[in-house]
Amino acid sequence: SKTITWSPTMAEKGGYRHFMLKEIYEQPRALADTIAGRALVEEGDVYLEDLDLDDAQLAGLEKIFIIACGTSWHAGLVGKFYLEKIARVPVEIDIASEFRYRDPIIPANSLTILVSQSGETADTLAALREAHGKGGKTLCICNVVDSSIARESDGIIYTHAGPEIGVASTKAFTTQLVALYLLALKLGRIRRSLSAADCQARLADLLELPRKLEETLELDAEIEELAREFVNARDFLYLGRGNLYPIALEGALKLKEISYIHAEGYPAGEMKHGPIALIDEDLPVVVLVPRNSTYDKVVSNMEEVCARGGQVIAVVSGDDEELLDKVAALISVPTVDEDLLPIITSVPMQLLAYYIAVLKGTDVDQPRNLAKSVTVE
Amino acid sequence: SKTITWSPTMAEKGGYRHFMLKEIYEQPRALADTIAGRALVEEGDVYLEDLDLDDAQLAGLEKIFIIACGTSWHAGLVGKFYLEKIARVPVEIDIASEFRYRDPIIPANSLTILVSQSGETADTLAALREAHGKGGKTLCICNVVDSSIARESDGIIYTHAGPEIGVASTKAFTTQLVALYLLALKLGRIRRSLSAADCQARLADLLELPRKLEETLELDAEIEELAREFVNARDFLYLGRGNLYPIALEGALKLKEISYIHAEGYPAGEMKHGPIALIDEDLPVVVLVPRNSTYDKVVSNMEEVCARGGQVIAVVSGDDEELLDKVAALISVPTVDEDLLPIITSVPMQLLAYYIAVLKGTDVDQPRNLAKSVTVE
Repeated sequence: SKTITWSPTMAEKGGYRHFMLKEIYEQPRALADTIAGRALVEEGDVYLEDLDLDDAQLAGLEKIFIIACGTSWHAGLVGKFYLEKIARVPVEIDIASEFRYRDPIIPANSLTILVSQSGETADTLAALREAHGKGGKTLCICNVVDSSIARESDGIIYTHAGPEIGVASTKAFTTQLVALYLLALKLGRIRRSLSAADCQARLADLLELPRKLEETLELDAEIEELAREFVNARDFLYLGRGNLYPIALEGALKLKEISYIHAEGYPAGEMKHGPIALIDEDLPVVVLVPRNSTYDKVVSNMEEVCARGGQVIAVVSGDDEELLDKVAALISVPTVDEDLLPIITSVPMQLLAYYIAVLKGTDVDQPRNLAKSVTVE
Repeated sequence: SKTITWSPTMAEKGGYRHFMLKEIYEQPRALADTIAGRALVEEGDVYLEDLDLDDAQLAGLEKIFIIACGTSWHAGLVGKFYLEKIARVPVEIDIASEFRYRDPIIPANSLTILVSQSGETADTLAALREAHGKGGKTLCICNVVDSSIARESDGIIYTHAGPEIGVASTKAFTTQLVALYLLALKLGRIRRSLSAADCQARLADLLELPRKLEETLELDAEIEELAREFVNARDFLYLGRGNLYPIALEGALKLKEISYIHAEGYPAGEMKHGPIALIDEDLPVVVLVPRNSTYDKVVSNMEEVCARGGQVIAVVSGDDEELLDKVAALISVPTVDEDLLPIITSVPMQLLAYYIAVLKGTDVDQPRNLAKSVTVE
């Protein structure tokens, strides 16, 4: 008979080979927990318990800054789309280590949002103090209760991702996207750029998302197979437009972090201004091209890559048969509203990086040179 | 006796092997021509002939957008630093192919600056029309007289770089930086964030710059030698902070475009949030670390790279002996005011990419897949 030995660490991993994989699989639950109690579907409104800004202050906001590092910065880039589109507030996003040294112009009726999983990121904490020092209000989106950034911010939106152990952030990222989306809906209602009916429809879609993420996780075996095909690539490009450009950046960062393959994300429309010179038969290009308002534009960018021999891995909505014979591989995600695409397309990005790293035999949960929470400058 | 045969093309190249090298060498002259007649040193002011905005409009600007693609976008990133620091106007910079599809919020008393060498870039032209359609004023920074973007913009600042033939932009880029700097000085005077005396001092420094660029070009042989050492690298990273982060992006883009080496630019402070996982003995890292207000921070980021075996090529001011024994190579540029560092450090970035491409035997002036002016989306 076969004896299965469980170490305490394996038990913590709930049977998964790595914390990262466990955390990828926890996302439907993490999203549901982050939405719970906040989506007021009947009222077509959102309740955020610790904003520390009353409705008049929120209505009067002239500008929002979003400041973060690494993966959280990518969440912020998506947040800018959400807040500008839904609440029509101008948003400036900056990297914390840049923001703090450039003497930013911060109006009094502005809000600075700090995004940090750990709530201890040194550059983000310093940026928070810079914003406070200039008299602006602050709000953090953070996963660790009572962390330094949470304690010093005026308001807090906690993500309810649960502890994240893998150095490469996964569930913290997608819950940050949900938190930013909820904030955009709340602000949209207060500033009257979003009707109660539209908010209801958006919340209904959002509540469906955990189930759709479960469905997306069924791509697991298919992506593991795909990883085998591309594991020997030396470099990768990732392309997206609009709210999926940050997901291209995030997909590339995940691959860099855990597989040590040089991957770079680019806005798809910028390809022809330089990076297209890199394209040859050896370069896999991941293109985020689900059905949305820039679908035709991205297909055309993708075709330029194909025409030059690039190996395209296309992430598409449902069965996009039109693209099937143009590309090297197709990853099909469930159809969702275009504002929720950044969340759902994150999953194949995570799985692809994960399986390539596993095949390369790197230390997935503790990649070389990286710390989970960067508490030094 | 040796007969030297000159082809008509070689004559156009003025004896240089490539247009790109000729254009790199034309920069002192191109800069001087772009400054000429505009720097009013005695008055401590700047004259820009075709702004099409009166002083009251310039004083009342609430926000500036800068929109561009590729290399011109990098110029815009530096322009944001100039305009915010010197004129204290909030600036939002965006990539043209992104801006036009995100329904941007454009206030009436805003100015949208379009940056394009050719003045024909399709995405930038479309962004100009988007800004016009929303009622904002527009200004282009452009090198080709009477181009489409010049004709449709309200105001124009021409760069006087002369015709640029090499696909990889060099002199157009550094003259764009000069144009943006002059604009920042003019706005600073009008908005009273810059005194006449400070403006005088800055203009005096600017007028010295062409001579300092001549001096920088003397690095030529040294950088050719350096190129030999690193020509077989598969990947490069480029790091900078603040107004040199865009130069890191530009250095990486130049190398990508003409040598087909996968080079990526990063804000130095973001290294530890991911890219540092890539560092090993085979990865050259170009670090822009001249003396400026973030010198110590960048030295510390650089040391993290060294500690992990990365091969650092440091671009420094004068003889920075402190760094000499820490790095694989040192490129020393003349000392200038920190706001002019982006211009002077561009030269070694161009020469390094040029010599690596020449050694690789690529078609430097006509790199694969690229067009000089991108007139399609």
